[in-house]
Amino acid sequence: MRIAISTGGGDAPGLNAVIRAAVLSAINRGWDVLGIKRGYAGLLGEDEVIPLTKDTVRGIAHLGGTILRTTNRGNPFHYPIRQPDGTIVEVDRSGELIARAHDLGIDAIITIGGDGSLAIGQRLFECGVKIVGVPKTIDNDVSGTVNTFGFDTAVNTAIEAIDKLHTTAESHDRVIVMEVMGRHAGFIALYSGLAGTADVILIPEIPYDIERVCEKIMARDRAGRHFSIVVTAEGAYPVGGEESSIGDSLPGQERRVGGVANKIAREVQNRTGKECRSLTLGHLQRGGMPTGYDRLLATRFGGAAVRAVADGLFGHMVALQSPHIVCIPIAQVLTTTKRVDPSSDIVLTARATGISFGD
Amino acid sequence: MRIAISTGGGDAPGLNAVIRAAVLSAINRGWDVLGIKRGYAGLLGEDEVIPLTKDTVRGIAHLGGTILRTTNRGNPFHYPIRQPDGTIVEVDRSGELIARAHDLGIDAIITIGGDGSLAIGQRLFECGVKIVGVPKTIDNDVSGTVNTFGFDTAVNTAIEAIDKLHTTAESHDRVIVMEVMGRHAGFIALYSGLAGTADVILIPEIPYDIERVCEKIMARDRAGRHFSIVVTAEGAYPVGGEESSIGDSLPGQERRVGGVANKIAREVQNRTGKECRSLTLGHLQRGGMPTGYDRLLATRFGGAAVRAVADGLFGHMVALQSPHIVCIPIAQVLTTTKRVDPSSDIVLTARATGISFGD
Amino acid sequence: MRIAISTGGGDAPGLNAVIRAAVLSAINRGWDVLGIKRGYAGLLGEDEVIPLTKDTVRGIAHLGGTILRTTNRGNPFHYPIRQPDGTIVEVDRSGELIARAHDLGIDAIITIGGDGSLAIGQRLFECGVKIVGVPKTIDNDVSGTVNTFGFDTAVNTAIEAIDKLHTTAESHDRVIVMEVMGRHAGFIALYSGLAGTADVILIPEIPYDIERVCEKIMARDRAGRHFSIVVTAEGAYPVGGEESSIGDSLPGQERRVGGVANKIAREVQNRTGKECRSLTLGHLQRGGMPTGYDRLLATRFGGAAVRAVADGLFGHMVALQSPHIVCIPIAQVLTTTKRVDPSSDIVLTARATGISFGD
Amino acid sequence: MRIAISTGGGDAPGLNAVIRAAVLSAINRGWDVLGIKRGYAGLLGEDEVIPLTKDTVRGIAHLGGTILRTTNRGNPFHYPIRQPDGTIVEVDRSGELIARAHDLGIDAIITIGGDGSLAIGQRLFECGVKIVGVPKTIDNDVSGTVNTFGFDTAVNTAIEAIDKLHTTAESHDRVIVMEVMGRHAGFIALYSGLAGTADVILIPEIPYDIERVCEKIMARDRAGRHFSIVVTAEGAYPVGGEESSIGDSLPGQERRVGGVANKIAREVQNRTGKECRSLTLGHLQRGGMPTGYDRLLATRFGGAAVRAVADGLFGHMVALQSPHIVCIPIAQVLTTTKRVDPSSDIVLTARATGISFGD
Repeated sequence: MRIAISTGGGDAPGLNAVIRAAVLSAINRGWDVLGIKRGYAGLLGEDEVIPLTKDTVRGIAHLGGTILRTTNRGNPFHYPIRQPDGTIVEVDRSGELIARAHDLGIDAIITIGGDGSLAIGQRLFECGVKIVGVPKTIDNDVSGTVNTFGFDTAVNTAIEAIDKLHTTAESHDRVIVMEVMGRHAGFIALYSGLAGTADVILIPEIPYDIERVCEKIMARDRAGRHFSIVVTAEGAYPVGGEESSIGDSLPGQERRVGGVANKIAREVQNRTGKECRSLTLGHLQRGGMPTGYDRLLATRFGGAAVRAVADGLFGHMVALQSPHIVCIPIAQVLTTTKRVDPSSDIVLTARATGISFGD
Repeated sequence: MRIAISTGGGDAPGLNAVIRAAVLSAINRGWDVLGIKRGYAGLLGEDEVIPLTKDTVRGIAHLGGTILRTTNRGNPFHYPIRQPDGTIVEVDRSGELIARAHDLGIDAIITIGGDGSLAIGQRLFECGVKIVGVPKTIDNDVSGTVNTFGFDTAVNTAIEAIDKLHTTAESHDRVIVMEVMGRHAGFIALYSGLAGTADVILIPEIPYDIERVCEKIMARDRAGRHFSIVVTAEGAYPVGGEESSIGDSLPGQERRVGGVANKIAREVQNRTGKECRSLTLGHLQRGGMPTGYDRLLATRFGGAAVRAVADGLFGHMVALQSPHIVCIPIAQVLTTTKRVDPSSDIVLTARATGISFGD
Repeated sequence: MRIAISTGGGDAPGLNAVIRAAVLSAINRGWDVLGIKRGYAGLLGEDEVIPLTKDTVRGIAHLGGTILRTTNRGNPFHYPIRQPDGTIVEVDRSGELIARAHDLGIDAIITIGGDGSLAIGQRLFECGVKIVGVPKTIDNDVSGTVNTFGFDTAVNTAIEAIDKLHTTAESHDRVIVMEVMGRHAGFIALYSGLAGTADVILIPEIPYDIERVCEKIMARDRAGRHFSIVVTAEGAYPVGGEESSIGDSLPGQERRVGGVANKIAREVQNRTGKECRSLTLGHLQRGGMPTGYDRLLATRFGGAAVRAVADGLFGHMVALQSPHIVCIPIAQVLTTTKRVDPSSDIVLTARATGISFGD
Repeated sequence: MRIAISTGGGDAPGLNAVIRAAVLSAINRGWDVLGIKRGYAGLLGEDEVIPLTKDTVRGIAHLGGTILRTTNRGNPFHYPIRQPDGTIVEVDRSGELIARAHDLGIDAIITIGGDGSLAIGQRLFECGVKIVGVPKTIDNDVSGTVNTFGFDTAVNTAIEAIDKLHTTAESHDRVIVMEVMGRHAGFIALYSGLAGTADVILIPEIPYDIERVCEKIMARDRAGRHFSIVVTAEGAYPVGGEESSIGDSLPGQERRVGGVANKIAREVQNRTGKECRSLTLGHLQRGGMPTGYDRLLATRFGGAAVRAVADGLFGHMVALQSPHIVCIPIAQVLTTTKRVDPSSDIVLTARATGISFGD
């Protein structure tokens, strides 16, 4: 048996732990393992395919990034080719990919990625490739799994940042608006804002009214709390405004960051007269060492993916349904995106402790 | 409405976040909140009962310990009284406790604690006191809930320690045996050992054979890996040996730590001739700032406990059944203790990646 | 004896540890201690003056921020007063301040602050106020002292950020430009860049040539290292460009951040065609818990400041001249600003390990 | 030019950063670099000598341990040889070592180690080997340098542990005695104890009276502070007791740990009746990622060592005399051991803030 592993989309803390667990599990079964570099580029002649051995994965469980590198570009079904005149034309290179995998004797592919990568995996599976998926999303927006590796690390990074901003905000009587990731799902903002005891949390699932945000800040001010912390998801938008078009979540596209926090800080300063600052966490959220939670979950996913291959559960994705790891059809996962439920206990508790969602 | 809050048993990171969320949730409903100091000592005239206000709980969400202090002693149904001759006699002071609570106008009590405290809470509930429980266990051995606050912090502390020991073990060609908490349940050892890529994990649920432990260490040695990391739960015991008697988990009793790691290190050194060291994490596991995960879970528990009081769900305990917080009867929780399932995916993956359980 | 303590300028991790050590040292001598809130606002009727007791400073050594709050505004010699027509006029309120201090029975003032606050302290000293200074600068640009508290924390925060960006940059073949504090002194960029193994470090003391920066990045690319990390001080500027005017470092003015990293990332992307990202650490550098180094140094400064008061060393500032804490005249400190010496061993070693300064 | 690098004695965070900086600095000068594995074992046929290239040292600056491994055994002038009857005889293998270095074309050796390794280096230098030393001591007891890498990491680890124990001690009204490294020098105990706001600090430089320790604890108890934290160096001893014999600090010998904290906790419990616990940090202090301070200092040392070789400063050791790195004769360093000065400002400030040294 020979399997291959691929990582696609933005990097997430825990990717290397998935790779390590999968490689060790496979080798200990007597299988061969190959690593496809940079998404599927390694199978399209744009990068390498390398053997993955016990030595290759030694000591990588706690390292951020991915030893296979990754990319947001290069969907084999819509592969961008630059023409002589500079324009980009998309071509279908999936046949080439499948042939190359066949030539290399690859029996099954474990693909680690988000919605975009899973959709590509599903199409390859429909073309006959034996695919097992491992979900990856910093934003926690993949459905069917309680969460995925990388999310806990991002939340902890955001909480640490809130802790740091708290002391400065309080010492200087300031309002600080911090922007975290989450274009369509506000989980990072909600979890970090509640754990970090923010005063206002803005998420795409609950459009905000800037006037209500300012009311909360001024109510605190009157109560002698002259500072406030606002945590906003990058996808938060005002009532009557428009959510970022779903279009920009296509694979191969890049997030734009920072604008939301700036805008809100400016508006709050204009309306309240209080000194406001903004900060965008950006790439700090997806880098670095995974937390213990993410190291463990990633390791469990890697082990489960190899068992799924052994069990012939192709077209399936491993998922956490606490306390179990289960396998669910990728096709089913792709039908919905997970979002914050405004009636969930977390939102209720946030409101009960006095946090405003600007609504 | 006037509620009171009590913390009992060993401290756990997140206790203050539970208290804070409960206090804010209650006050924002217009309720009064009292804090019973040091378990139930505050209601027995041995310590204070204090008002808990917004000011009292300001800025405590990220602090370890408990502002109410806690104790492993003082079960009101078996209260230890020192006699003139120095002996200890246990008396039932529950009637006194209930009368005092009545005098203070306490309508309901939120009790935050482990098996011992929950059992006391259940008996008080059976005596007519309106009790809502919040589970607390570093070891993760309370059933009915995926886990509780404090556990994630303890696991992360253990992983950090393994990371530190790894570099020393590897630089010096040593075997290091690290002991973590877990008398009857090996969750901390299992989770931290797998995430920290230990080589051997010993837990009470899988009795070990010291010969198999040494085989694993020597197999690594022959493969050029001259060091090994063994993570053992304090309750691990050899095949044919005897598990620590359930008796010593009674509330009011204290854990004894360190002996297991020492013993195993000595035996391994004698049998393999390799340089061995041992280390016991002890109290480092239950102190300090909670992780983001634990801050969030503790906050959710605090908010849910107040909703349970409002809903009249007395004799119930809040619990995490991901992704939901639910309420379950305390009586049902007390019938079983949660332990590691040797056929769970975590154990399977650990074995698949090459970790030995000494069996 | 009655002393007062004031904190001015931007907050820095360690301020509370200075306050705590000074308060305990003074009280244990039998002195009284007052805290002047928000710079000197507390002495100008714009804020409070509060008693500082052992209880006030309990448990604050490891907290960021300052319990006295702080401000960049309110130089008593040039106090900004808003006129009915909206314009700002500066008036000298130093006499009022001195009279108020006299009325409160304040014998001496310990002022904790940067160049701006020390200059105010020196003028007050010249007016007869018994002043002892404690230097505070995140940028490490106060002369006469090896460094001050807060700097080590800022450097560690920057290194952690570089570590996080490293994994993302490497996984995605990107160039990431990170901006840290340092308008006139590049210490944070130099220290964090060298310890974090950046590839390019840009500091105000060594004007850069963007072409040389791109050469370094492309040389790495040709050697198979497709990513690069650039750390830039906010005050870095190109050869032939102009350093930020000294004017904007006046107390009461605020830093503008983020522009430098953006500009450099854009230029590098245009010139090299490589995918570039930028990130500005901003307020994350001055918030949060101080490192051990800073907690210790701040505590030593606080203790030394009280001894300086006892010894009558007014008009002096405590300073670290390793391994000793010494007292030096504030007037002497104000004559120069400390900057990175381009011939120092740190710069030499950075160059020797292959780091480019863009020159 | 061909140089070799060796690491000896216990590992310390920062060793890899020294190696990396030295290797890059040397290679960028066009030199060859060899790594001698496990102290001098690599030159005595007991282990390898390996080439060190840019690839070898990639990404190791922040890793704990040493890629060259290390040992407390194997002084070439007194090399232990096990006889057929099991006894150990020491023989002089220095000639063999020097011949082997000559055969390998080694022009100079950079030896990174503590007093023991530096003494060996000095003897080799006297035999004609071109030696440059880099000091390494977790305890901070090497004279001539403000401090060395690894010390700041150890102090931070100890402070974090004190922070964790604080919350448990306070919640449970306990006395906790924590033992840190330092057989002859109490720097770690003093620095971490003061920064961590311990209540009692015991160091070898100030023999303690257990009665005074208990007085401090009971005075706190009477003031309503029912818990206390005692930080003790492993070498602390009572007045009239005996300091650990200098004999056991010989290279090749191992520290025994844990006994001091246990003994003190038992004595305090017996005398005060308060619940006491002890904890020994042990190997946690020397493992793991170096702090930013240590990464920087180690990198500076590595760069300076190569410049020292280039300048022909053999028989010298690099040292920090803030803000400069200097070179001083090893022979001079070996004449004294650095110890805490009981009249230093740190001890004065500790006493002024209320900390007892038990004297």
